[in-house]
Amino acid sequence: MWRDLASIGRDRRSGGYRRYAWTGADTDCRAWFRAQAESRGLAYELDRNGNQWAWLGVATAEDIALGNAVVTGSHLDSVPDGGAFDGPLGVVSAFAALDRLREDHAAFTAPVGIVNFTDEEGARFGLACVGSRLSAGGLSQKQAHALTDGDGITLPQAMERAGHDPDAIGPDPERLARIGAFVELHIEQGRALADPAALARTGADSGSVGPRGRPVGVASAIWPHGRWRFDFHGEANHAGTTRIEDRRDPMLTYAATVLAAREEALHAGALATFGKVAVEPNGVNAVPGLVRGWLDSRAADEDTLAAVVAAVEHAAAERGRRDGVDVHVTRESRTPVVEFAHGLRDRIAQQLGDAPLLPTGAGHDAGILSASVPTAMLYVRNPTGISHAPAEFAEEDDCEAGVAALADVLEGLACR
Amino acid sequence: MWRDLASIGRDRRSGGYRRYAWTGADTDCRAWFRAQAESRGLAYELDRNGNQWAWLGVATAEDIALGNAVVTGSHLDSVPDGGAFDGPLGVVSAFAALDRLREDHAAFTAPVGIVNFTDEEGARFGLACVGSRLSAGGLSQKQAHALTDGDGITLPQAMERAGHDPDAIGPDPERLARIGAFVELHIEQGRALADPAALARTGADSGSVGPRGRPVGVASAIWPHGRWRFDFHGEANHAGTTRIEDRRDPMLTYAATVLAAREEALHAGALATFGKVAVEPNGVNAVPGLVRGWLDSRAADEDTLAAVVAAVEHAAAERGRRDGVDVHVTRESRTPVVEFAHGLRDRIAQQLGDAPLLPTGAGHDAGILSASVPTAMLYVRNPTGISHAPAEFAEEDDCEAGVAALADVLEGLACR
Repeated sequence: MWRDLASIGRDRRSGGYRRYAWTGADTDCRAWFRAQAESRGLAYELDRNGNQWAWLGVATAEDIALGNAVVTGSHLDSVPDGGAFDGPLGVVSAFAALDRLREDHAAFTAPVGIVNFTDEEGARFGLACVGSRLSAGGLSQKQAHALTDGDGITLPQAMERAGHDPDAIGPDPERLARIGAFVELHIEQGRALADPAALARTGADSGSVGPRGRPVGVASAIWPHGRWRFDFHGEANHAGTTRIEDRRDPMLTYAATVLAAREEALHAGALATFGKVAVEPNGVNAVPGLVRGWLDSRAADEDTLAAVVAAVEHAAAERGRRDGVDVHVTRESRTPVVEFAHGLRDRIAQQLGDAPLLPTGAGHDAGILSASVPTAMLYVRNPTGISHAPAEFAEEDDCEAGVAALADVLEGLACR
Repeated sequence: MWRDLASIGRDRRSGGYRRYAWTGADTDCRAWFRAQAESRGLAYELDRNGNQWAWLGVATAEDIALGNAVVTGSHLDSVPDGGAFDGPLGVVSAFAALDRLREDHAAFTAPVGIVNFTDEEGARFGLACVGSRLSAGGLSQKQAHALTDGDGITLPQAMERAGHDPDAIGPDPERLARIGAFVELHIEQGRALADPAALARTGADSGSVGPRGRPVGVASAIWPHGRWRFDFHGEANHAGTTRIEDRRDPMLTYAATVLAAREEALHAGALATFGKVAVEPNGVNAVPGLVRGWLDSRAADEDTLAAVVAAVEHAAAERGRRDGVDVHVTRESRTPVVEFAHGLRDRIAQQLGDAPLLPTGAGHDAGILSASVPTAMLYVRNPTGISHAPAEFAEEDDCEAGVAALADVLEGLACR
């Protein structure tokens, strides 16, 4: 499976993946998913929102009515220059775990589904988890139709070009009602599992932690997070002739805001990042007229997050007054804290030999689904902690341990 | 002439011009120049470097051998979202001044040429004054062939697509040797001519300065200037999961460097600007792996410029050590101070009623030519000082005054 996926959407220069929703690379990933489903004799379904499903079982109306299906999976799209594992590890492990259970002649008592959620990263249209948000009803068709990418192409246009009907998208409660439990396996996006000291801080049993940590963990919660766009409006001018004191240079206000965000996050024990910037006119010899910077911020609780963002906004406005620059802040997305279903997560952690419980700052489709379906997540050790970058990496042994753990969890849920 | 030029390469949204070298908009500007030359019965020439010339006279070998031609003109390309006047005012005024002299039956004793230098702004290939540098021998064919634009298109490829032979480019000493004097008229790129106090500081005779300043001035010198690319190499990572203390975030180092540049310039009475930035991967939820920022810096003398740039480099390296970010600085261009020929400039200033002498931080083809040809510049008042931006503006009366001044200067030089 990895060999087939390796070249899809890979940028030769950076070595990273550029699998953005509804592009050619995404279409290739989706064709791969369908082929994997069909080669295993699984029933393939494409839902109204472009999410792909592969079912073992769910043949009868009774099965559907019972709502006891066990679903696993993740996503296949990527951030710009993302790594190989974020998303695909969950999908590949899902197929591999199902293969293992079938080889062992597991006695399934409930249907099992594998899912590929569409546009989880939001790299193209700026909003993460579009496929799961639409199905769960947290994003309306109207809101989704208003999304545009950096080239001005709307989400409906992109869907149409990829052969998907944009007028079909919307909530899908019947499909979600089939699901009794959703388990998403994901590469860890920090290095807690690789760091015995960090595991100790989570309260993990020291007897179960080796010198290299543990290969598999279980998610406890997803931090609340959001994205805010900061528009810094100054006055475009000639960099070679405009006196320093006559300038209204928005790059200065942006720079001061970047540094303020770092300080506020550090003091609050939170995260705040300016990773994306757009400058007009972006010429070497031009004082910019407009600088746009995007703030990504996350914290362990809602109050801390709100305080960090308010402090960054305050610092931006203050510096803007000094620079003669107007600052406008737009909240582009906001996801509340997610506590995964305690019963399910604790049972899974116990089943996996008291696997450590870890919180994360990263959003996932599992977080979106958790509002309507009992949901859990497994993490696979990431020795460097690098994520959303070409150097993202997991050891093959740890990936195997992830498959074994996922198979155990599925067996516990679907073979009762 | 303005009506014909108004719509070429104009961006509807910004209202600014995007006339980059060897693009369709540039081709349209060049076709306009040729048509202007031919409609006036001037001899049209395209030189090996793509510079366009329109000649009144220069018919005989004797004329050429005398090297007494008087040339005026400027450029027609633009920065991203540039104004209408920067460049075109010098070309339009050249044709208008020649028209006026011919209507007045001026008795020319020397050939007169009008020139449109190619790729003055360097907006596309990153190096300013490519056309004049090539002709004057300051840029070799090999160096020019190595230039690439933001899409990876090389200068030779761009020339070929526009129908120009890239293997023809190189030094053009014979053509420059024809020229006895070059005078470039340009909109002022600051507001000294509009500011009686600023004019007083240049030593202008207060009796010749009105409450709104003066419509026309003469260049004294061009400040030394250069462009330096700062590459900040950190580690790309997930913005939602990487702890603040585990990050090597180059955006922080970039931000601190932007602020340091402003402080250094202010203290030194110089100019330092970061107006262009490129980020990889430039995703909202990704700590960048690489931030590139371009420093444009200029000062009244070479030592001050060197000191400012060294101080900015030092601040960047210092902050980089703190952030775990490697900083590499590449000098992309460096233009020494230009003192315009004192005899010519003083004679012109006197002829124009003791016009004020002004230095500038902006580079021009006149600065490049001044090494091989006696060269002068006229400035036309810019009431707001805005330059390299859509709001750049000059009053119609001041443009007329510029044409009249240029006609007087040409008459003084070519009708002796």
